[in-house]
Amino acid sequence: MANPTTAITPTRSENYSEWYQQVVKAADLAENSAVRGCMVIKPWGYAIWENIQRVLDGMFKETGHRNAYFPLFIPVSFLEKEAAHVEGFAKECAVVTHHRLEVGPDGKLIPSGELDEPLVVRPTSETIIGATYAKWVQSYRDLPILINQWANVVRWEMRTRLFLRTTEFLWQEGHTAHATREEAVEETLKMLKVYAAFAEGWMAMPVIQGSKTDGERFPGAVDTYCIEAMMQDRRALQAGTSHFLGQNFAKASEIQFLDANGAQQFAWTTSWGVSTRLVGAMIMAHSDDDGLILPPKLAPAHVVIIPIAHKPEDLQAITDWTRALAADLRKQSFDGRPVQVELDARDMRGGDKAWSWIKKGVPVRVEVGPRDLAAESVFMARRDRPHKEKVAVKRGEFIAGIAALLQEIQDGLFARADAFRREHTKVIDDAKEFETFFTAPTVAENQPTPIHGGFALAHFCGDPKVEEEVKNRLGVTVRCIPIEDSNDPGKCIMTGAASKKRVIWAKAY
Amino acid sequence: MANPTTAITPTRSENYSEWYQQVVKAADLAENSAVRGCMVIKPWGYAIWENIQRVLDGMFKETGHRNAYFPLFIPVSFLEKEAAHVEGFAKECAVVTHHRLEVGPDGKLIPSGELDEPLVVRPTSETIIGATYAKWVQSYRDLPILINQWANVVRWEMRTRLFLRTTEFLWQEGHTAHATREEAVEETLKMLKVYAAFAEGWMAMPVIQGSKTDGERFPGAVDTYCIEAMMQDRRALQAGTSHFLGQNFAKASEIQFLDANGAQQFAWTTSWGVSTRLVGAMIMAHSDDDGLILPPKLAPAHVVIIPIAHKPEDLQAITDWTRALAADLRKQSFDGRPVQVELDARDMRGGDKAWSWIKKGVPVRVEVGPRDLAAESVFMARRDRPHKEKVAVKRGEFIAGIAALLQEIQDGLFARADAFRREHTKVIDDAKEFETFFTAPTVAENQPTPIHGGFALAHFCGDPKVEEEVKNRLGVTVRCIPIEDSNDPGKCIMTGAASKKRVIWAKAY
Repeated sequence: MANPTTAITPTRSENYSEWYQQVVKAADLAENSAVRGCMVIKPWGYAIWENIQRVLDGMFKETGHRNAYFPLFIPVSFLEKEAAHVEGFAKECAVVTHHRLEVGPDGKLIPSGELDEPLVVRPTSETIIGATYAKWVQSYRDLPILINQWANVVRWEMRTRLFLRTTEFLWQEGHTAHATREEAVEETLKMLKVYAAFAEGWMAMPVIQGSKTDGERFPGAVDTYCIEAMMQDRRALQAGTSHFLGQNFAKASEIQFLDANGAQQFAWTTSWGVSTRLVGAMIMAHSDDDGLILPPKLAPAHVVIIPIAHKPEDLQAITDWTRALAADLRKQSFDGRPVQVELDARDMRGGDKAWSWIKKGVPVRVEVGPRDLAAESVFMARRDRPHKEKVAVKRGEFIAGIAALLQEIQDGLFARADAFRREHTKVIDDAKEFETFFTAPTVAENQPTPIHGGFALAHFCGDPKVEEEVKNRLGVTVRCIPIEDSNDPGKCIMTGAASKKRVIWAKAY
Repeated sequence: MANPTTAITPTRSENYSEWYQQVVKAADLAENSAVRGCMVIKPWGYAIWENIQRVLDGMFKETGHRNAYFPLFIPVSFLEKEAAHVEGFAKECAVVTHHRLEVGPDGKLIPSGELDEPLVVRPTSETIIGATYAKWVQSYRDLPILINQWANVVRWEMRTRLFLRTTEFLWQEGHTAHATREEAVEETLKMLKVYAAFAEGWMAMPVIQGSKTDGERFPGAVDTYCIEAMMQDRRALQAGTSHFLGQNFAKASEIQFLDANGAQQFAWTTSWGVSTRLVGAMIMAHSDDDGLILPPKLAPAHVVIIPIAHKPEDLQAITDWTRALAADLRKQSFDGRPVQVELDARDMRGGDKAWSWIKKGVPVRVEVGPRDLAAESVFMARRDRPHKEKVAVKRGEFIAGIAALLQEIQDGLFARADAFRREHTKVIDDAKEFETFFTAPTVAENQPTPIHGGFALAHFCGDPKVEEEVKNRLGVTVRCIPIEDSNDPGKCIMTGAASKKRVIWAKAY
């Protein structure tokens, strides 16, 4: 059911999943490649990732971490060292078995030079980094090790979706080693808070910080913490994880040290990561039926200037004027860097230009025609408002107010996402109501497609079998056990057994 | 033959190759990993690479390029499309043949889930990017495409050396497509000039810009241009390449467009890259027998402050004073960013601290003891001068002059490398002299190990067979045909045939 009044077909309410694919396409963010499950991240999508990297990298360094780089390949014998870990990753990894190609009998190239031991393309780097830390750590004086790596990883996913789940993806993985359990737990939670601060402060996406149940824990971790966000289809998306690994990987990799008393100890390690999945989360959290909406703090361009010259004789004056406007805007600062301006001088109709930038999510658009020059003003539109809403603003006012405007848009996106999540989060104390919440069609205005539930805050006894049963019956899982103290003990709505606090149940990406 | 008066054993003159390995180790830059030929880049080494990335990335963007990301894997059938290309890379590539591991009969994990078509881990991305561009390009309006990628690549090298030649390495690869031959040639040369400007302006390493002979060309290129630098053992190191690919890859990948006249044309493409090899080049160009010497513009730290408190009661005052000094230095700016300061508060002897930073190559060291506090001065040493040379400088003067001092050190390193290259570059017009240049031991003062030759500027007819013969006999190759017009036609010193200009012959890394 096409909707001619929106730039994206179908709309969110018509087919959310297909809407997402079309937003990615219309904004020119990424596309599938010829290699199964691997995406091409196009310049506009990659520029968003560069902004994510820049901000997070600064936050990691502020918290005492340094970057390093470890091998892409992991010997199979390394993976095998940690039982839960290999169990979790062996089923979906790219295996390198040969180191050259030679011409086969039919003239085609075939693998040759078989390796003594196959190598796995890293799905995550705990084992190869653990083996390295084991060499670096001798004494408690060598600890802590606080290192991050920006890298590509490969997990052989069967069903892939651009940004959300791809065979190869880009991420950062922090890997730290500590002398005590307390220090490692503190690090795990510190980085969880960094992720939450980034999601809320830069992505404008409210998140719940919590820990995972047994079934959803990282393979090999003692505790997995996560940040969970609600998308516009009310599903949960895990946007970052921070793992307290206890001594599991230290024992597997033999990361040992002499403590201050001369006793041999195993180190305590952590790992934490976010990936290009964040781009998918950002898209789904804010965008509308006209395409991408970018939070200004992560937008590759804050303002696009569209010169509108109907007559050739106006062109030079408009070009000069808009160039000067761009230069003056770039002297303004937003979120610690110069305001980013695109001047769209393409030989194309003004309306087509405007739509291309609407679909790309640029926070502020200004059109400049001959009358605007005369009036020393611009015709301005905000991406967070309906596309027809345009206002004339005096040039000087616009320039002086650009940083405040961008912050207002940033705050508005957060407030909107926060209100949406509150609206679709429900405290539930009854199994029947729980089932209804996740199965009854909730038909809102302009939303013909039934969308179920949202986040259910319900008491849970923690029994993995119960969680499994709910998952199979309703497609709903425990997204996390929120960290904030609810001081609200109660009874599991499934079993009636004691529950320390409410957990978040939801359908998930 | 150990030399107790230097921090690095052996010295350059004793064993240059081993000296290099020891400098890398002493500066804590990188180490070999458990995976054959793959290195671990440690934080100090990676921070240098981050600086290289930051500067080059800015230069690429200044010249109109944007970053994107393409798949790690290349189907074997893609490699096969360009005959010279597959010939060049098939012999040394990591081949992925399976997508999971399963427990084999002996309880060990074995590859499982064989792929229909094997995948190669990218040794370079012309073919996978070409296949993508073919989809993007329809009309001349879609051109040019100016894209760069920061990525890891894998070439199964048999003999590896940290930074200089590793199985996996980090690099950037620019890939552009153009409507005309002229535009593509212009792009190729523009990026060569960017590399030369970076090598000379940031790495403080003079380079010769030139083109490669047939034998040294990139597999599939029409012309390969390069920058060549002289290391301190007088060998040449290729520090960056820029390839004019003609229509070879456009034809292989079917990158076609309708030109302004409605005729179907193949695009003209280029590719250009530099890698973590630059870190190796930088080490070998400047470092001495006390370890690494960093050009200030790429140094992770410009100044290290070493508090010297012999008595515990002095500690607090010195700590406060050095912290304030660090803060004031950070307010100064060098090469467009704040001066980077390390305050070494480790519980360790001052001498040991100083030596650790000498070996790490930090351009300026200051020691601060109780007497310096009283005199409001610091005790300063420069890494480009002998380590015993220290001078007292007034605090205010030191802060005010830090940017100029760093620039002076930067310029001095360039001048030193430039003088060295001039000293060891010889115009040769005679085959016998040529042979002597590359075989006779040249014993300089304090250089007991014979070091041969350097760069020979000699006329060459261009015959690949002659080049091959010289390579086999003397281990010497044509590093490049310099771009600068020499206006100096002559006769090949090997064959007497006509030669348009002199070429650079040298032993090479």
